[in-house]
Amino acid sequence: MNISKLNTKYIGAITNKIDQKTKPPGALGQLEAVATQLALIASNRQLGLAESIEITKPTALVFAGDHGISAEGVSIAPSDVTRQMVLNFIHGGAAINCFCRANNIALKVIDTGIIKPIDDDIKNQHSNFIEQRLGAGTNNFAKVPAMTTAQVEQGLIYGKNIAFAQIEQGCNLLILGEMGISNTSSAAAILAALTGASLDECVGSGTGINSEQLTIKKQLIKTALKRVNTKDAIHILEQVGGFEIVQMVGAILAATEAGIAVLIDGFIVSAAALLAKQINENVTDYLIFSHQSDESGHQLLLSQFNATPLLSLNLRLGEGTGAALALPLLVAATHFYNDMASFEQAGVTV
Amino acid sequence: MNISKLNTKYIGAITNKIDQKTKPPGALGQLEAVATQLALIASNRQLGLAESIEITKPTALVFAGDHGISAEGVSIAPSDVTRQMVLNFIHGGAAINCFCRANNIALKVIDTGIIKPIDDDIKNQHSNFIEQRLGAGTNNFAKVPAMTTAQVEQGLIYGKNIAFAQIEQGCNLLILGEMGISNTSSAAAILAALTGASLDECVGSGTGINSEQLTIKKQLIKTALKRVNTKDAIHILEQVGGFEIVQMVGAILAATEAGIAVLIDGFIVSAAALLAKQINENVTDYLIFSHQSDESGHQLLLSQFNATPLLSLNLRLGEGTGAALALPLLVAATHFYNDMASFEQAGVTV
Repeated sequence: MNISKLNTKYIGAITNKIDQKTKPPGALGQLEAVATQLALIASNRQLGLAESIEITKPTALVFAGDHGISAEGVSIAPSDVTRQMVLNFIHGGAAINCFCRANNIALKVIDTGIIKPIDDDIKNQHSNFIEQRLGAGTNNFAKVPAMTTAQVEQGLIYGKNIAFAQIEQGCNLLILGEMGISNTSSAAAILAALTGASLDECVGSGTGINSEQLTIKKQLIKTALKRVNTKDAIHILEQVGGFEIVQMVGAILAATEAGIAVLIDGFIVSAAALLAKQINENVTDYLIFSHQSDESGHQLLLSQFNATPLLSLNLRLGEGTGAALALPLLVAATHFYNDMASFEQAGVTV
Repeated sequence: MNISKLNTKYIGAITNKIDQKTKPPGALGQLEAVATQLALIASNRQLGLAESIEITKPTALVFAGDHGISAEGVSIAPSDVTRQMVLNFIHGGAAINCFCRANNIALKVIDTGIIKPIDDDIKNQHSNFIEQRLGAGTNNFAKVPAMTTAQVEQGLIYGKNIAFAQIEQGCNLLILGEMGISNTSSAAAILAALTGASLDECVGSGTGINSEQLTIKKQLIKTALKRVNTKDAIHILEQVGGFEIVQMVGAILAATEAGIAVLIDGFIVSAAALLAKQINENVTDYLIFSHQSDESGHQLLLSQFNATPLLSLNLRLGEGTGAALALPLLVAATHFYNDMASFEQAGVTV
C-alpha cells in the first residue's frame, strides 16, 4: 500500500496565495487551514500547484454492522435497531439522508454484517444499498474475539473496493459514517488499546446508557482488552473491532492511497481513522475532522491527530451526520481559495 | 413598533415532532435548538403549528460606513480601505461574495456613509449596490458626538426600509454584515455603555492592532463614554455609534417586526443587536447567532443574549462572513425538521 505523505513544497505558494486575498492575514481562521489542506492534497495529486480546487461528487458511505456485545446490554437500543435504521437509510428517512440532500452529497449504505440481511426485493429496488457482509454480527468480544483474521482481511478489501469504486466514478472527497448498535463499545476498546489511556477516559455513555450500564460497559471492555497484547491494528480489529469499523479502515486506506481527502465524522469513524493511522502514518495528511462529538473519549481521540474539528454542535448520532453538516464549510473554503480577489486585483491598500 | 414575543404555545408540539424523529432524544444537539426556533418563528407568523419550515430568499445586507475615530489610528488600515472594500463587494471579489455564492445567498451592499461616495457610472451598473448615506463618515467620537439625533433617526428609517424591501420580495431570513474601518471601536463603546463592563473586557485588537494602539483605543473610548449618561439606545448611537451600526439596528427592528429570523454575524452586528434589544426586548426571540468571533469582547456580547453561536472558527473578518457560513446549518435543520422519518413511519423500535 503506497500512501504518499503530502509534499510540503507547495505550502509556501498556497499560503502566499491565501495571504494576498483581501482580508487581514489569518482572518478566516480555520477555513484558511482547510483551504490549505485541500489545496495541498490537490497539488500533490496533480503534481503542481493547484491554482483552484474543486470538490467533485462528494459521497457519504454509511457502513452498518451488528455487534455481539449488544447481548450484554451496553446500549439503550437492541440490535434490531441496526437493521431498522439500515432500512430507514435505504428509504431516505434518516438524519444522514436529510443532510446529504441538503448539501448535495451522494449516499451509499453498506451492510457489512447486520444480523439479518435485507430482503432481496428491497435490495433489488435500491441502488443506494450495497451488501458486503462479513457475517451475521460480530462475536461478543467480552467473551471471545470479535472476528477472525480472515474476516478482518476480507473487510479491509471490501472497504477498499467500495472506496475505489466511488473514486473511479469521480468522487474526490469521501465522507464516512456508520450505524451499529453498541459500536461505541468497540470504538472505546480500540481507543484504549491504541493509546493505553484509562477506560474512564475512553468509555462513554453512547446514545444514553445510565451509570450502572456504563460501569458494566467498562468492565466488559477491560476483560476483552486482556486479550489484546500488541498495538497491531489487525490484531485489535480481530479482538474488539466491528465489521463496519474494519471496512471503514479499508476505505480510509484506499482513499488516501488514491490521494483524496476523507471527511471524518464522530467517535466511531475517528476510531477507524486511528487504526488506519496505526497501519500507515501518512493517512493523517488527508483527514479532515468534521466535528467534536458529545461522546466522552472523542476529545482524546482527536488529540491523537492534533485535530481541531470544524463543528462543535453537541451531536451524538453518528451515521456521518457531523461530516455531512461540515461539507459546506469545505465548499466555502474552495470558493474563497479560487475566487476571492487579491489586494492587487481589487485595488485594496495592503 | 410592534414586535411580537414568540408565542410559546407551539413549543410542546414542535418538541414532540422532533423527539419522534428516528434518533435518540437530543442527539442532533444545537441543530434541534435551531429547528425549534425556526419552527416557532414560522408558527408564530402563520398563527398555527408549522408542519414544515422553509428558508426563502436568504439575503445578506452588508452595511458600510466610515468612522471619524479612524483619525486616531485605532485600526491597522486607513479609512480608504472601507471604500475600496465596498468596490470589492460590488465587483464580487470579497470573502462575503464567495460565501454568498457558495451558499445561494443574495447580497446587497449599502453605503450608509463612507467618506467618498461611489462613482455614478459604477452605481448605475450594479443593482447589488444601494446608497443611503447619512454623511461622509461619522465625527471623531473621541472628541465630539459621532452623529446628530436626526442622523440616528434617519439611519433607523433607512435600515428599516431596506429590510422591509427584502421581506417584500420574499426574503424570510435576513443576514447582516458590515464593513467600516475602526468600527470595533464603536461596537466596543456600545457594549461598554450598555453593560457597564470594563473596557478591558469590551475592547479588543480588531483586525490586529498592537498593544500600544490598544491602550490608546481604550483611552479614547473611555473619554467618549464620559458623555454617555443613559442606556438609551438613541443616545448611545448618537455619541459613539456608526452609520452602518444605526442602519443595522433599524434592519433588525424591521425584520423582527415582520416576524422573520435574523442571522447575526460577529462583534459589530452583535453590538447592533444589543442596541435593538435595548429598544425592544422581544427582538431576541428572532435572533440566531452564527459564530463566535475571535474579537475579544464578543463572548461578553453573546452572554447578554445567553447565546451559544453555531460556529467557532476563529474568524475575525466581519462582512457577514460568519453568518453566511452558518446558513447551511439552518437549511439542514429545516430538512431534518421537514423530512426526517418518525419512529412510527420508519418502523424503528423506540
